Amino acid sequence: MKEYSIIGKPTRNVDGVAKVTGEAVYAFDMTLPNMLYGKLLRSPHPHAKIISIDTSEAEKLSGVKAIITGKDTPGGKWGLWRRFPELCDQTALAMDKVRFIGEPVAAVAAVTEEIAHEALDLIAVEYEPLPAVFEPMEAIKDDAPLVHDDFENNINTTRHIEWGNVDEAFKNADYVREDRFSLSSQHHAPMEVHNALASYDKGSKRLTVWASTQSPYFLQLGLADALKMREGDIRVIKPHVGGGYGGKNSTMPDSVNAALLSMKTGRPVKIVFNREEEFTTTEHRTAMDIAIKIGLKKDGTLVAKEVKLITDGGAYTGLGATTLYLAGTFVTFPYKTPNYRYDGVRTYTNKMWSSSMRGFGSVPAVYAAEIQLDRAANDLGIDPLEIRRINAMTPGYSASGEYTVESCGILECIDKMGKRVKEKWNDLGEDEGIGFASFAYMSGGIFNWIDTPYAFSGAMVKVNIDGTVELFTQASDIGQGHNTVSVMICAEELGIGMEDIRLHPADTATTLADLGAWGSRETLMNGNAVRAAAAEIKKMLVAVARMKLGENIVYDLVAKNKRIYLELRPERGFSYYELVKDAIKQNDGEPLIGIGHYTPHNKGMISPAYGMGIQAVRAKVDRETGLIEMKDVLVVHDCGQPINPPAVRGQVEGSTQMGLGYGLCENMPTDNGLILNPSFVDYKLIRSRDMPTIELMEVPTYEPEGPFGAKEAAEATTSPGAPALANAVYHAVGAEFDSNVLKPEKVLNAIRAKEQKGKA
Amino acid sequence: MKEYSIIGKPTRNVDGVAKVTGEAVYAFDMTLPNMLYGKLLRSPHPHAKIISIDTSEAEKLSGVKAIITGKDTPGGKWGLWRRFPELCDQTALAMDKVRFIGEPVAAVAAVTEEIAHEALDLIAVEYEPLPAVFEPMEAIKDDAPLVHDDFENNINTTRHIEWGNVDEAFKNADYVREDRFSLSSQHHAPMEVHNALASYDKGSKRLTVWASTQSPYFLQLGLADALKMREGDIRVIKPHVGGGYGGKNSTMPDSVNAALLSMKTGRPVKIVFNREEEFTTTEHRTAMDIAIKIGLKKDGTLVAKEVKLITDGGAYTGLGATTLYLAGTFVTFPYKTPNYRYDGVRTYTNKMWSSSMRGFGSVPAVYAAEIQLDRAANDLGIDPLEIRRINAMTPGYSASGEYTVESCGILECIDKMGKRVKEKWNDLGEDEGIGFASFAYMSGGIFNWIDTPYAFSGAMVKVNIDGTVELFTQASDIGQGHNTVSVMICAEELGIGMEDIRLHPADTATTLADLGAWGSRETLMNGNAVRAAAAEIKKMLVAVARMKLGENIVYDLVAKNKRIYLELRPERGFSYYELVKDAIKQNDGEPLIGIGHYTPHNKGMISPAYGMGIQAVRAKVDRETGLIEMKDVLVVHDCGQPINPPAVRGQVEGSTQMGLGYGLCENMPTDNGLILNPSFVDYKLIRSRDMPTIELMEVPTYEPEGPFGAKEAAEATTSPGAPALANAVYHAVGAEFDSNVLKPEKVLNAIRAKEQKGKA
Repeated sequence: MKEYSIIGKPTRNVDGVAKVTGEAVYAFDMTLPNMLYGKLLRSPHPHAKIISIDTSEAEKLSGVKAIITGKDTPGGKWGLWRRFPELCDQTALAMDKVRFIGEPVAAVAAVTEEIAHEALDLIAVEYEPLPAVFEPMEAIKDDAPLVHDDFENNINTTRHIEWGNVDEAFKNADYVREDRFSLSSQHHAPMEVHNALASYDKGSKRLTVWASTQSPYFLQLGLADALKMREGDIRVIKPHVGGGYGGKNSTMPDSVNAALLSMKTGRPVKIVFNREEEFTTTEHRTAMDIAIKIGLKKDGTLVAKEVKLITDGGAYTGLGATTLYLAGTFVTFPYKTPNYRYDGVRTYTNKMWSSSMRGFGSVPAVYAAEIQLDRAANDLGIDPLEIRRINAMTPGYSASGEYTVESCGILECIDKMGKRVKEKWNDLGEDEGIGFASFAYMSGGIFNWIDTPYAFSGAMVKVNIDGTVELFTQASDIGQGHNTVSVMICAEELGIGMEDIRLHPADTATTLADLGAWGSRETLMNGNAVRAAAAEIKKMLVAVARMKLGENIVYDLVAKNKRIYLELRPERGFSYYELVKDAIKQNDGEPLIGIGHYTPHNKGMISPAYGMGIQAVRAKVDRETGLIEMKDVLVVHDCGQPINPPAVRGQVEGSTQMGLGYGLCENMPTDNGLILNPSFVDYKLIRSRDMPTIELMEVPTYEPEGPFGAKEAAEATTSPGAPALANAVYHAVGAEFDSNVLKPEKVLNAIRAKEQKGKA
Repeated sequence: MKEYSIIGKPTRNVDGVAKVTGEAVYAFDMTLPNMLYGKLLRSPHPHAKIISIDTSEAEKLSGVKAIITGKDTPGGKWGLWRRFPELCDQTALAMDKVRFIGEPVAAVAAVTEEIAHEALDLIAVEYEPLPAVFEPMEAIKDDAPLVHDDFENNINTTRHIEWGNVDEAFKNADYVREDRFSLSSQHHAPMEVHNALASYDKGSKRLTVWASTQSPYFLQLGLADALKMREGDIRVIKPHVGGGYGGKNSTMPDSVNAALLSMKTGRPVKIVFNREEEFTTTEHRTAMDIAIKIGLKKDGTLVAKEVKLITDGGAYTGLGATTLYLAGTFVTFPYKTPNYRYDGVRTYTNKMWSSSMRGFGSVPAVYAAEIQLDRAANDLGIDPLEIRRINAMTPGYSASGEYTVESCGILECIDKMGKRVKEKWNDLGEDEGIGFASFAYMSGGIFNWIDTPYAFSGAMVKVNIDGTVELFTQASDIGQGHNTVSVMICAEELGIGMEDIRLHPADTATTLADLGAWGSRETLMNGNAVRAAAAEIKKMLVAVARMKLGENIVYDLVAKNKRIYLELRPERGFSYYELVKDAIKQNDGEPLIGIGHYTPHNKGMISPAYGMGIQAVRAKVDRETGLIEMKDVLVVHDCGQPINPPAVRGQVEGSTQMGLGYGLCENMPTDNGLILNPSFVDYKLIRSRDMPTIELMEVPTYEPEGPFGAKEAAEATTSPGAPALANAVYHAVGAEFDSNVLKPEKVLNAIRAKEQKGKA
């Protein structure tokens, strides 16, 4: 590996001090002079016609400044799949009917939050309840009630993927098996709830919104569509964000209604969801049923795979349609799959809609694939690591042109895992098992459903006379540490110190567009843009240095340690600060400005690069209680060149916790569309004291498409926890599961079923 | 004149609605979470040694978070004349001695303003009073106490200007006269007092300051010198500003001590001066004594001028040294002066220091010159307008290479004035008189005392996919309307609407350096930078349009009405919005970015262009009471191409009011260095109900160096009010004055002197 000055070195977060001292400002913390508080009145019905809304009593309440209902909105519909207008189905407030419990029907702005709340109680809404549908398999029936009139059989979208000759391959396979899995939902549960502060200036007719968002750009577009305004007349600023995990990609009623109320009142309006609203009326992971069939040769070589799945979409689209695409892709990873067929269906139901969540699409898909592969290995008498080894992708592997995997360390990861497990876990006790699951995920998506005409990421660097750098990027740090990564990349490229750089992030007006923080895209995509912008500056400085040196043009110059010098004769060079002064003088007194952008090219339609690895969970099962004790987790991880190792580690820990939670205890049960556990008391997360230790081993590769060899890091590790846990339980006590969330009663039932099967 | 779409059309201020609704945020309005309030303890002595400062009692007060004295500061000295380090004489807090009443000796930060105030009373300072000096003529005596030990005879700076052969010319003159004038001080009296909010981030070791300043860049440099930090580690943001008038160019103890207290506490700290502090401890117009001698031919032609002046500098330098330079220059304007000699001396005294104020340097100089010229005309029996006519500069006039006046409408102004006066004022009554005074001022200064390596003005334009424009400039709107002028210039150049442009002003981190709002520099200098940045964009769009048209390259394209089209065949062209989309596509998805800058070249060392004109005041004097009744004011004004006529008019009105106030009632009397009238009760301003009507006539010229022909507007009209008023009083009742501020007793004395002179 190349030796870098900053990249790959453990580095403190640039905003770390501000965060631990409480100085860091989140949208949640913000106020503006004269600000009003907004609240949303929400439907108690899963499906109902709105007969009338009477706001007259509420309007009389002192301190209420504005009340709006659907008819007071411009009626703009929006969604993230802007290339497909029919899938842009969200509205600010319900227009004619409500489609889920919690759908907003009116919004109030008042001088205090309490008054706004009181006003909600005074709004009288007359509903005519309609028959509702809650389950995907029910929803697609011909006689099911329609959530949206224009969508027959409640089918929101479908996706078909196919390569090779699947039927032929299955015919020739030595071993074929089919499994069915039912995967539940999961909530993002971020520390910071959804909230937005909107300020409309009646003079310039422009709107500024500060919001807890993963993508200021997506929010700008969503607001433009919702409000029927020009996107350029809307400025979105992302302050610090207290967690997103995929739940803050969509434009939600908080920001849209805050904007509408600000436009009506001429005052800034802030809407903050409470925790119950956060659980019940923001997006969550897509629940789905998966039928998965594989064909293998006797030696374990995978020859064919066929997957059918149906997802519980809920009432609107969000990014839900993308689930089909990603599940259908990552159910094949990280294995060579010569023949593949996939059909996915997303249904509308009368529930809060599902959308993106960390490991989006891959988490349920990997669950199904990795449990099934384990079962096949068992049937064929092949070691679980060996079957993964046999089928592992190798560098440059291309799935029939659908995607190409350039850097690819999965084989090394599996080998390293094998070695480490032997070394570390040679003391398995009774009712203990080890479960493995491989994982892989993208470094940002190439599919451009949002239909941006911009480069996917842009960055600008301005260098002041004293060498200090202003770095402008719209990339979104949502807690994952990307602000630090941006500064590291810029500093490395220019050969300067982190302290020389001031970052100006995530403001749609002052920075070049970036699609936001989702699908692990920022490090590779925005990192490339930042590096390109810095490289423009470096070029200017190298030109000055070359001129001053008078050296033949064949000699290379490097920028390092705040100097630019001849690579072969490091003593011949100049201080970076001196060269900046010269360059600005040469530039007629203009500060140096470098601009860079990145859009993937010739990389197919999925992603430019893939991070991957393998996880192992060691678990012990209590046959009496059904309780699972997770003892240790091993993660072997190829994220290309890790930019900031402690940040990668932190993300692996968080993803692993979330993945294990998905496997063990997190779900969102509903009753007639009502989410039953909308609080941190009832929604069960694995707490830090219940977490197993995590041992992380990096297998660095060099991703040629990434900045300094970097690619996706850690998001993929959300996937393996649940299947590895299930596999561990299987190896411990033989219990098999066709769904996630291994609560004690389910484990006991599975043990019992296994015992009875043994007896039979 | 060229017909423009936007330039020259009456245009509403872009921030007008925000200002009238109270939405506009001034530094004064700002708060930050966790903010502390700072207060300064000030010296009661005009000159004293500091023996000791005991802060122990104050530190015990609950709610006090930090107290600093001189020894706790880094001791950095600063000033605006950075090219001359010995003139950088300001410090955050007095180090060893105090030099004026009100000099800060300690600063307190507390959780409320009241506690901070209470803490001041608990700080015990032991002083050893020193002999003090208050008058310039005393200060230069050999035995005068020294304000600064290193400055002999208390001489802060001197300036000599000379061209032609003055002695020879005086010898050959038909008529020579010498007059002496004593001009008093004047306060800026802005609506918004000095205040600053500083926030230091201990993590990044960077400082952000929001301040009521005329030049974020000057403040950034001042803070860097004061705090011994890199300028790039300091970010200065100028919110809306409630008036500057030259009083907010210097870095003052509010911002520096707010910064120091924030660095000490790790919390944001705000310091707001109260009105008394504003009057007594912020800068004011430089008082001076002027000896002026002219030689003329019988026909009134000016052949020689000699000026000597001495100014009351006060305890520190500020921009005071520049007064000498500008007074020495503008005392010759707008007249051809073939032989000229000037000597100016600035003295240190034990008072709050004087610095720049609207019409900086020119106001007292024009006072002396215009009264003297009137007297000469009277002696020679020449009409006051005629003597001005005879000597008026003509386009292209160069004062022996010292300065060159390109556009020059003074002759037309005098002619128009003559016509209008005859027409309007043919009904002069008893004890009524008409006084004239010409005026001229610069369009920004070329002299670069601040020693910036940057272009004087820079601007950046970013064009989004929907054609909306983000315009970045560091230019400072301080109430004069420059934000609107920036947007108008950008819109005109691109042929788009004002509503297409969002302005991002006055932030040292996000914009290209600009020297700030002083000397009427923004319209010409920043306007040129904005226009250049917009022109870069236009060039890109024209290139796309040309390519699409396939037309021969000799045909010109124009950008107008949101289209770019062939000048000769307007129907052949494209929508601006369409071309932007094409250009961004062509640009690989990068928004369009244009950068422009301006630095004067080949324009000498004073200014690239000069606004000018003539003013007439009609006044009636009550011989019994000495009260002056100002009836009407006529202003004929050449500001090149007025960009926004109502803004020009507004500025002319404000300047005229200030000029008349200087002539009639505004001054700052002191007693042993104590300013005696530090409140709006005692400081006499002309209120709106006492203001005469002002008739403004524009004589538009085209200034080739200015954007769309524009140059200085209205600042020059601060000068003529006082001398025109004095001349009017002379013509009404024959009373002569050798100083400004025509209070009734002074008028009565002058009338009596005149009568006795008549009798003698």
